Amino acid sequence: MKPVVVTGTPRVEPALVERLAALGVATAHEAMGRSGLMKPYMRPVWTGAAVAGSAVTALVHPGDNWMIHVAVEQCRPGDVLVVAVSTDNTDGMFGDLLATSLQARGVVALVIDAGVRDVAALAEMRFPVWSRAISAKGTVKATLGAVNVPVVCAGALVKPGDAIVADDDGVLVVPRRDAAAVAAAGEARVANEDDKRARLAAGELGLDLYGMREPLAKAGLTYVEWREDDGD
Amino acid sequence: MKPVVVTGTPRVEPALVERLAALGVATAHEAMGRSGLMKPYMRPVWTGAAVAGSAVTALVHPGDNWMIHVAVEQCRPGDVLVVAVSTDNTDGMFGDLLATSLQARGVVALVIDAGVRDVAALAEMRFPVWSRAISAKGTVKATLGAVNVPVVCAGALVKPGDAIVADDDGVLVVPRRDAAAVAAAGEARVANEDDKRARLAAGELGLDLYGMREPLAKAGLTYVEWREDDGD
Amino acid sequence: MKPVVVTGTPRVEPALVERLAALGVATAHEAMGRSGLMKPYMRPVWTGAAVAGSAVTALVHPGDNWMIHVAVEQCRPGDVLVVAVSTDNTDGMFGDLLATSLQARGVVALVIDAGVRDVAALAEMRFPVWSRAISAKGTVKATLGAVNVPVVCAGALVKPGDAIVADDDGVLVVPRRDAAAVAAAGEARVANEDDKRARLAAGELGLDLYGMREPLAKAGLTYVEWREDDGD
Amino acid sequence: MKPVVVTGTPRVEPALVERLAALGVATAHEAMGRSGLMKPYMRPVWTGAAVAGSAVTALVHPGDNWMIHVAVEQCRPGDVLVVAVSTDNTDGMFGDLLATSLQARGVVALVIDAGVRDVAALAEMRFPVWSRAISAKGTVKATLGAVNVPVVCAGALVKPGDAIVADDDGVLVVPRRDAAAVAAAGEARVANEDDKRARLAAGELGLDLYGMREPLAKAGLTYVEWREDDGD
Amino acid sequence: MKPVVVTGTPRVEPALVERLAALGVATAHEAMGRSGLMKPYMRPVWTGAAVAGSAVTALVHPGDNWMIHVAVEQCRPGDVLVVAVSTDNTDGMFGDLLATSLQARGVVALVIDAGVRDVAALAEMRFPVWSRAISAKGTVKATLGAVNVPVVCAGALVKPGDAIVADDDGVLVVPRRDAAAVAAAGEARVANEDDKRARLAAGELGLDLYGMREPLAKAGLTYVEWREDDGD
Amino acid sequence: MKPVVVTGTPRVEPALVERLAALGVATAHEAMGRSGLMKPYMRPVWTGAAVAGSAVTALVHPGDNWMIHVAVEQCRPGDVLVVAVSTDNTDGMFGDLLATSLQARGVVALVIDAGVRDVAALAEMRFPVWSRAISAKGTVKATLGAVNVPVVCAGALVKPGDAIVADDDGVLVVPRRDAAAVAAAGEARVANEDDKRARLAAGELGLDLYGMREPLAKAGLTYVEWREDDGD
Repeated sequence: MKPVVVTGTPRVEPALVERLAALGVATAHEAMGRSGLMKPYMRPVWTGAAVAGSAVTALVHPGDNWMIHVAVEQCRPGDVLVVAVSTDNTDGMFGDLLATSLQARGVVALVIDAGVRDVAALAEMRFPVWSRAISAKGTVKATLGAVNVPVVCAGALVKPGDAIVADDDGVLVVPRRDAAAVAAAGEARVANEDDKRARLAAGELGLDLYGMREPLAKAGLTYVEWREDDGD
Repeated sequence: MKPVVVTGTPRVEPALVERLAALGVATAHEAMGRSGLMKPYMRPVWTGAAVAGSAVTALVHPGDNWMIHVAVEQCRPGDVLVVAVSTDNTDGMFGDLLATSLQARGVVALVIDAGVRDVAALAEMRFPVWSRAISAKGTVKATLGAVNVPVVCAGALVKPGDAIVADDDGVLVVPRRDAAAVAAAGEARVANEDDKRARLAAGELGLDLYGMREPLAKAGLTYVEWREDDGD
Repeated sequence: MKPVVVTGTPRVEPALVERLAALGVATAHEAMGRSGLMKPYMRPVWTGAAVAGSAVTALVHPGDNWMIHVAVEQCRPGDVLVVAVSTDNTDGMFGDLLATSLQARGVVALVIDAGVRDVAALAEMRFPVWSRAISAKGTVKATLGAVNVPVVCAGALVKPGDAIVADDDGVLVVPRRDAAAVAAAGEARVANEDDKRARLAAGELGLDLYGMREPLAKAGLTYVEWREDDGD
Repeated sequence: MKPVVVTGTPRVEPALVERLAALGVATAHEAMGRSGLMKPYMRPVWTGAAVAGSAVTALVHPGDNWMIHVAVEQCRPGDVLVVAVSTDNTDGMFGDLLATSLQARGVVALVIDAGVRDVAALAEMRFPVWSRAISAKGTVKATLGAVNVPVVCAGALVKPGDAIVADDDGVLVVPRRDAAAVAAAGEARVANEDDKRARLAAGELGLDLYGMREPLAKAGLTYVEWREDDGD
Repeated sequence: MKPVVVTGTPRVEPALVERLAALGVATAHEAMGRSGLMKPYMRPVWTGAAVAGSAVTALVHPGDNWMIHVAVEQCRPGDVLVVAVSTDNTDGMFGDLLATSLQARGVVALVIDAGVRDVAALAEMRFPVWSRAISAKGTVKATLGAVNVPVVCAGALVKPGDAIVADDDGVLVVPRRDAAAVAAAGEARVANEDDKRARLAAGELGLDLYGMREPLAKAGLTYVEWREDDGD
Repeated sequence: MKPVVVTGTPRVEPALVERLAALGVATAHEAMGRSGLMKPYMRPVWTGAAVAGSAVTALVHPGDNWMIHVAVEQCRPGDVLVVAVSTDNTDGMFGDLLATSLQARGVVALVIDAGVRDVAALAEMRFPVWSRAISAKGTVKATLGAVNVPVVCAGALVKPGDAIVADDDGVLVVPRRDAAAVAAAGEARVANEDDKRARLAAGELGLDLYGMREPLAKAGLTYVEWREDDGD
């Protein structure tokens, strides 16, 4: 890894970002062909936030948040700062001072595969954070990493300028060039879901709504009556 | 495992279910002789729900929620749908559409040893869910499992028709034939606890209330005065 | 391990405890030179509590809470009861009855490297608890442990009379003799942070505020312009 | 859970046990329709053992091996002792003295969802053990459990008299009444595999051997030529 | 994710692969600037193998090994098959039949972020495998994935044609275009290490050999004499 | 934490160390009243080593092994180097060069709550290592820690000069001042065990040998005959 900061990285167009945010993670993930999700250990520090933005990436080392300070300067309004670590680590690399700085720059969220602290303040500031852990453990500023290089964060590849969608269901990475197609596919899906929801609420079975009875029978599913001695 | 759906499974009588719900998990678990609990990684998606119901079971495969759709048809008002997986998996097998369908059928809760998604919607719908994980990861509908066979869910054996009790403390399985005895034993325990709570609140020590001083001394417990150099 | 209860253990002076509570965990941890934190799996049962107190310690065995009952008697107003276990265990060793007893004695919090139950009641009582797990699993009272001996709890050494600081960021142990120095160092730190927060909120970069540009350049950090084919 | 020892439990016929041992875990598991496996954290203490036997079960509590001593008396030549714990625990509940006792009784293996110790001696004695952990942590003998009741061990239901098959791939539970059918199905599978192995060794592709090309194409799989800029 | 097989992917030149294998994982990783390592949960199924080769990649779904069969056809002598899964999974996706097929094609190793089975046979065949788990759990062939697309495997990005280096220390990914530079840097490092090893074996201290005394003193390290009451 | 190296720390007398090594971890742990064990995730890098020695301690930071180099100088023949980390970390902090240096100084083993690498070489050198992980991940030398201060390593408190006992069962810490008493108590235990082993090997039951029948009956254990419909 070279200790480098890449400047002038691209962004996803704001209107597109907004459409992805409106879809939410689960729908956009389905629209992507079920790929791009970070691992489910990434949880929101406070619930209820639902955001999208363009990724600025940072690669840091365990117990060392120096590169986060460097990355802040590369952030612009509408960005999501994505922090990956060179090895599993839960240290509290980010707190209310860094959040103040990011908020001042118009950054919409932090996604970090490590720990964060000052979480009561983060909730009060309404600054959205998805992290691997909550930890007060302090960090040093001693070793260089990189900013705006491709990183693997919580099992997902993130390139600078990719769209990040995050809500209570988790964090999704939408490659920049796929963003428009994903938004369109997701919106079609949503339109479709409203009708389904109404029919399910009215008592129609998914088995019928989705036409599953025939494929289930073909696959060999059989129905038998329960008897008192059936493993009871 | 045979790909089978067992129909006409038994239920626990509603009045009995209500009594178990009133006890709550911790008390009913003690009343069962401290058995029947699912592992503590099973957590409510939103806090505050406290329910009981009769189990409809489904056994599914990792990344595949086909059998949940099949299981919905077997559910009746007052049931709890219990989903076990053939191997550890956190995929998001259940979301707001399936919750809409279950609510339409009067199902009181979902207990699933896997992930769920659309958790903001689930909280808004007030549909209680206990799960191993929250994950937006989508699933396929490709492989048969089974419905209403005995399953091991989060370390506990569940047979169709067993009573499920769930609240913020976790999830308990009460075998159908033991439900009446457990309810009675739990109610006796509750009556007993109110008096204890009052005495403890008044400052009486558990050591005295429970008569522990003598058995402690017999077991060899001794008291010594702290000195400055005692490992300090 | 000898089955012993040490009585008459020391405390940290109340005024000092109050100052540590005001600092919070993250700041006090920094003021200690970044040491003394329990592992981040220790989480509050309900969020929003922020406390400090003098430690009364208990060492118990897995699945056995007998010594907690013994420890209650050693607690005084302003204490924090700290429970360590001789091996990893998540059983529900503590519930609303023990919390009632501790509250009656003026104890400010429980810190336990095991599970707790009755968590809805604990939240309603506003009794602060930090634990490794939430579990309804009941425990026995069969084996002696020790009270007010030095223990390792969630990776941190705790001696009776040490100060415990706990909030949504985690749990910190401040050795009794260091408490005054830590409070002073933390207060200096807070004064310093307010100014920083204002400057960061006004848009000043941490890179400038902390004078990082020169050391970063010296360490070899370089800036390059993004190009379309940079791994994209 | 009632503190009970069930005596006179059934066994699987020795000839049948031998046939299951010859199949091994992976083949017998497939022959059962891919069910009955314990979780993969169950590992052999020393590699190379491959056994089968009838289950004698014990349910113990964390940190307490009293019931293992009780279970020994219920063991007969050809048995496998299966120990489940009422909650997750890694304590060293079993060592060379208990292994000596089991070997003296002709028991073929121990399967325990907890820790074991004296592992160098166990390897030297060639006494096969599958466990969740290796730990020198000692246990008490204070609380009753049960012997020869149905238990959930490492995620699998085990009833006394079920067949246990264990080798370097893990541990399988074959319900007693299914043992003959599983042995027969497994043997058919083995015959079939020898031919497959020879054809694969000769260079024939599984795609052709298993006739997968048509279903893959039907499912929508396409082939494209790699180009230099394909994500590289 | 599109269900696609990319053919004609590039390889690293055999002579280069050989040089990387000779370096081993730890040295090559240092030569890469300490990047490219898979997570340490990836362990060899049998110890002592040390290999390198060009990556053929497969992306499969939990509990489904269909794409591994498809990937075999894309493998050539000298390749390493790298299998990533769309979500965490330990199922036994690979056994002796697939190993026979890979060996027949000259494949040097399997690296899989899931489970494998028939491990006694794999060791006997001397077919090297690095995996997340050992598990007899069988899989289905029902859902399409992709072959020779970039994947994230155990936290590391792998593109088809990257060099894979694996030994008892773990698994390293060397991007194809960096392979020559990494080999050269690693070889320089090895030459350097032999001299260091001799000096350390002769009793010279690393503090002197690496010239650390001055930077340590500058950073503030102090030496003090132990006294009996130093925390003892 | 102060960045300090404490020199001239005490040792346990060699004859005593030898007696502890002869006992082994499980026996010495019992002789200590079942305390002092490190967590069972500490495993030997190669099996078969059984050692004891006096502890030299180092406290390092995640991803940084600078203090290990400093600690080497404090080691003397017969010592065990114990490395604790300020937060959970699996990086490969130790390899064959450091092992060469320690062997040159007569150090008998390394115990490290982090990762190690070059494990094939470590096994060949017969240098005993117990660690949390095996990982090729390289580390920096940037941040000061401390040497020969009390540390918590894998859940156990270690002071410089304590005796460390380690074998295939795990790692035990014996406080320096308790070493003679532990050795004596362990030796008495061993003498006692030989007789027990012979009696158990001859078929005598532990129930009789340990006189458990009466306390079991008193505690309420009952025996019942198995019936075909007992949950089967």
